[in-house]
Formats: sequence, C-alpha cells, structure tokens
Amino acid sequence: MTNTLMIEKAKTSKIKDVDFDNLSFGSIYTDHMLVCDYKDGEWKAPKIVPYQPLTLDPSAKIFHYGQSIFEGMKAYKDDEDNVWLFRPLENFKRLNKSAKRIAIPELPEEFFMEGLTTLLQIEKDWIPKNPGSSLYIRPFILASGTGFHASPADEYKFIIACAPSGAYFSGKVKVLIEQNYSRAANGGVGYAKAGGNYAGQFYPTQLAIEKGYNQVIWTDDNEHEYIEEAGAMNIFVRINDTLITGPTSDRILDGITRKSILDIAKDEGIATEVRKISVTEVVEAAKAGTLKEMFGAGTAAVVSPIASFGYKDNDYDLPDLADSYASRLKKRITDIQYNRAEDKFGWRFKVQ
Amino acid sequence: MTNTLMIEKAKTSKIKDVDFDNLSFGSIYTDHMLVCDYKDGEWKAPKIVPYQPLTLDPSAKIFHYGQSIFEGMKAYKDDEDNVWLFRPLENFKRLNKSAKRIAIPELPEEFFMEGLTTLLQIEKDWIPKNPGSSLYIRPFILASGTGFHASPADEYKFIIACAPSGAYFSGKVKVLIEQNYSRAANGGVGYAKAGGNYAGQFYPTQLAIEKGYNQVIWTDDNEHEYIEEAGAMNIFVRINDTLITGPTSDRILDGITRKSILDIAKDEGIATEVRKISVTEVVEAAKAGTLKEMFGAGTAAVVSPIASFGYKDNDYDLPDLADSYASRLKKRITDIQYNRAEDKFGWRFKVQ
Ligand SMILES: Cc1ncc(COP(=O)(O)O)c(C=O)c1O
Ligand SMILES: Cc1ncc(COP(=O)(O)O)c(C=O)c1O
Repeated sequence: MTNTLMIEKAKTSKIKDVDFDNLSFGSIYTDHMLVCDYKDGEWKAPKIVPYQPLTLDPSAKIFHYGQSIFEGMKAYKDDEDNVWLFRPLENFKRLNKSAKRIAIPELPEEFFMEGLTTLLQIEKDWIPKNPGSSLYIRPFILASGTGFHASPADEYKFIIACAPSGAYFSGKVKVLIEQNYSRAANGGVGYAKAGGNYAGQFYPTQLAIEKGYNQVIWTDDNEHEYIEEAGAMNIFVRINDTLITGPTSDRILDGITRKSILDIAKDEGIATEVRKISVTEVVEAAKAGTLKEMFGAGTAAVVSPIASFGYKDNDYDLPDLADSYASRLKKRITDIQYNRAEDKFGWRFKVQ
Repeated sequence: MTNTLMIEKAKTSKIKDVDFDNLSFGSIYTDHMLVCDYKDGEWKAPKIVPYQPLTLDPSAKIFHYGQSIFEGMKAYKDDEDNVWLFRPLENFKRLNKSAKRIAIPELPEEFFMEGLTTLLQIEKDWIPKNPGSSLYIRPFILASGTGFHASPADEYKFIIACAPSGAYFSGKVKVLIEQNYSRAANGGVGYAKAGGNYAGQFYPTQLAIEKGYNQVIWTDDNEHEYIEEAGAMNIFVRINDTLITGPTSDRILDGITRKSILDIAKDEGIATEVRKISVTEVVEAAKAGTLKEMFGAGTAAVVSPIASFGYKDNDYDLPDLADSYASRLKKRITDIQYNRAEDKFGWRFKVQ
C-alpha cells in the first residue's frame, strides 16, 4: 500500500501558536489528517491532506441517522523522541466491530495501520512531551452517502485527526450512580463506539454536573442495580484487597485500558474478579469501610481515581490511600505507554 | 420575525430535471433550504438559501457523538393548489422534546413555523399532486460545535430541507418480530427522534431483509415479549374487531400518525385499546384466526398494512380483508391531509 498513500503537505504549520504547557483535551488539531473514502462498494486508497473542513450534502446520513463510529488512541513520546502507540491493533479490531453493528463497511487493516503510522510520522513534532500530555488520536467513520430513507448510506469517510492533549479530568472525580436514565439496551449498540451512544449521555450527565458531580456511573436499564461503566471509562471497584470490574456485554464497551489494567493487576499479585457489581454491594462496602477504592479506566482518562459517589441523595466518600491500586496501576500502564519501563506484555508499538 | 428572515433565491431551478411521475422517497431535494445557527448562547435569525453543501470542521461533534435530532413532515397540495400541513405544531413540540433529551438548545416556535411556511411558499411548485406523492419535509438539528471532549457542543445548525417523494414502502410489508436485537433502553433516548436511534436499527434490519422481510418489529429489550414499534412507524394490531396499539413510553416515539389514527378510529366507532401487546397474544390470535390486521403508522409510511410477520422461524400470514380498518383509516387521514374531506379535528394547517 505504501505506493498508493498520497500525501499533500500543509503549506504552513499552526504549531507555533500552540501552548504545549497548557493543553486542554482534544480542542487543537494538528496540521494534517488522513482521509479515506468508501464509494462504489470499496474503500479507496487513503490520503494525507492538510487539516480542513468537510463538505457534505445536507442529506448526508450522518446528519440524520447518527451513522458514525469512532476510536480513541494516544501517541506517546519517550525521552529519545521515539513515538509509541499502545495496542493499536485492538483499536483497529474494535473499530470494525463497531462498524459491523452500525452497518458501516469494515475497513482493511493496512489502511488503518499504515495510514495511522504515516500520519504520526508527519505530525511527530505535535506529540507533547510534558508529563500527562500526549497526542490524542481520533479515527472515525461517518456516513457521507445521502438520502432521507432510513437505511445505511452507500458512501462513507474514514478520517484520522489528532489533537495534542492534556488531562481529561482535572483532579479527583465525583460520580453519581444513575437511577433514572440509561446508556444502553440489551441487544443494543452499547458495546460499539457508536456516536449516538454519547449524545444520549449528555443530558443526564449535565443534570449530574448541576448537582456537583463530574460524571455519571451507568447502571443496567432494567433495575438500575448493576454498575456498568462511566461516560468514556470502564469502572473498577476495590473491596478490601480485591479489585473488581464488571464483565463486558453487549451493553458495555470492551475497553483496552480495562483489560490491560486487569492483566497488570494480576501481574502485581492483586486479586481480581470479573463479575457483576451491584450497587447494594458497593453501598454496603462503603458503609462497612471495606470499599477502599473506585476508579475509572480509559484511553482519554487513563486511570482516574474516584473521590466519592452519590447514590439516592447520599454521598459516600472514598478514603485517600497513600499507596492505592489506582496509583500503582496508573504508574505501571503509563510507564509502558511512555517507554519508561519493560513491556513484558508486548503492548507497545513503535511508530517508524 | 418576518422582517428578519433573510431570503437568498437560487439562480436556477433544478425542477425541470425531476420526473414527478416516478418519485422515490427522499432522494431529490428542492432548490432552497432554511438554515438557522445557534451561536454565543442563542439561535440567530433563520435564512433561506439555495440548497447547498454544509462545511463543517472534522472535529464537529455531530461526526463523533451523534448529537443530532430530526423531524419528518409532509406538505400536501389540494386540487386548487392550496398547500397544507398536518399538525405541524406537534412536530415542533416533539423537536424540542428531542432537543432536551439530546442536550441541544430548544428552538423558538416562530423560527420553526415561520421558517417552514416561508420555505414552503418558495418551494410551492415542488409539491407533487400525483396520488400518494407529497413533499417530504425534514427539519433537523446537528451539533456543529467542535471538540473531542465527550460533552455537548456550543454551536448547532437547524436546517429544513424538502424532498418531493413517493411511497416509502412499495406494496404490503413483511415484518420480523425481533428476538435478539433492541432499539431502545428504559431510561434511554427511544422516545426522541435522535439520529443514533436509527443507525442502531440498520444492521438488525439488514439481517431481516436478507431473510426476506422488509422491516423489523422491535420488542422490549428485557424479554423481547412486548411489541413496541417498527423502524419509523408505530404498530397497530386488530384482534377480532378491536384495534390495539402499545402505550408510548421512554422507549417509544409518540407518533403523530399514531395518535391521529386512534382519534379517527374512535370517531369511526372502532373499539380501541392502548395497552401492552405481547408477542404471545399476537401469535395465539394468528393461530386462532382472530388476528385480522396489523399495520404500521407514520408520516413517511402513512398507514402500511402488514401482510405477514415472522416469529422464531415461523411465518404467519394475515388475511387480505376487503374492507380493512387500515384502508378505512388511511382514507380518512389522507382525505384530511389532502383537503379532500372535512377536518373535524382541526388538524389541517394552511400554508399562506
Ligand atoms: C463508553 C466507553 N467505555 C469505556 C471506554 C474505555 O475504553 P478504552 O480503554 O479502550 O479507551 C471508552 C473510551 O474509550 C468508552 O467510550
Ligand atoms: C421510531 C419512529 N416511530 C414512529 C414514527 C411515526 O411518527 P409520526 O407518525 O409522527 O411520523 C416515526 C417517524 O416518524 C419514527 O421514527
């Protein structure tokens, strides 16, 4: 494919305007993007072009039927300016899993991998080195084909855009265990990174923010009794010394951070359990003092310790542990991501 | 507002290229569209402009988080070339109900109503007069504000586009009662006309089409035992001489055709029930010969009789009645819509 990847370089760079010491999350974009069109029944060769607006017909299905999927990845730079990705093939596979559920044609692996690595080589200078910063990478597919008939589009665009980013949350996180709204249905699209899953979370999350929380913890839509996940994070609970996370299902995203954290925890000798977690169990443990930690895990938020949770008009504070699992696991995973430690799992992927 | 609605007329018209005798559904667009921008915390005055592509940043939230809602309406022309809408305020109210759930700022009524009627006056020649044809109207709102943070956008576009259209389904419809996939969660966004609700239906619908059906009938996500609705239609079942439809809920769209059909049926002296309909009841009635009719009801599909339904590897045919409720009710509602009969309910709205 190397021969067919066309590159059109930007005439000027915006990089001089960027304050790399004060990066927010995902709001500044690099000079280039990858674009790949699906037309006439096939994905055409990808191109790297200057970052630029998209021009779409008002009847494009993305505007009407939410036919879009995405991924979230990061590129990390080490002290020698080597560039690293973390388990990128997992993102590629999940993109195609999402594609299938949203009736989007699956993408060839080489378009994804070679497009991504070539783009990162071009944007190398945009990858921050400040602690806690990285280049957030957003591969996404949208339905550009037109028509008001509620059926899949016949044309799509696969795009990769990049944004140098700082932390997703600033500080510890207060969560609300949701008792009215839901994120996903059994037999629905919760396990896919489908655009519509996120729009549906905004309003309940706003309500939680108005009450002083940062994030909603979603529960099952039937009884609101089992903890599922947070907006863009899977959830871990530590009761006594056991680390517990819910099983993945058709309602829950199979997070790459989640499964990596599980592997690292086992390697650290931490007892882990993958099983349903009931709200009752968590509340009882909080009351009994056996609930030691809760944290979210995801590419954007890395490992985000939860300071307290709200449930039915009560708030429950979590202890502030000196040597928490969250901090140990976060150090282990980021040390692998930034090439600061051995990678016994073979997760690191060098961009070259 | 009249003074502030700016109109920019198209230099040429595409109308001569249109074969009004062979219209498909929603695939040809008129010369103009209404556009209204939300910016700096308010909806700015709408404009009517030539139908043209939209230009959006690749990081616009519509592409990533499915933050969009829409409505579906029709304009009808009578024998004297008067133009009519059907209960347009109901669409406006539902748009704002959807807006709230998807964290989109609500739209002022006059922007919707005056924008819509002015646009229809300009596009009057595009409204087909052929039987079964109408001008399909698509009001929609999309998140144009940017950023990879999963939170509501700060800018939006409200657009109305129009498409002269023929029938949504050609002929009678074969449906499959879904037993694996689901459309909506309790506490979710099923009752909103949110884009993401539709993308999630495409794949299961494709699977049904491959098996020879036209449409899926969605059931509850918990047991798959209660009939909810179809892709873009509410569902009615006639057992003996009683017409039954499910209650609306947070999973089911409160269809304007549905509630109009209920009122007309009562007016016709037909016994109606609004209550949960179990699949078991429908299958038993089909076996016993008491299931007389099933039909879908929606703006796009009007009243669409169902010829047979599939359930767990069996197909059940419905009788072909000479004087069906479906045909009586369809005649009554379309006679009101096309100004061919008295409108005792006050549903017709003259565009002038
Ligand atoms: C709903 C949801 N859950 C969990 C995650 C975490 O997944 P990962 O660790 O692969 O980033 C994400 C985001 O990426 C998400 O969107
Ligand atoms: C999911 C769904 N159900 C039902 C309907 C029917 O609603 P209405 O009669 O207002 O068009 C529609 C479409 O309009 C719909 O999208």
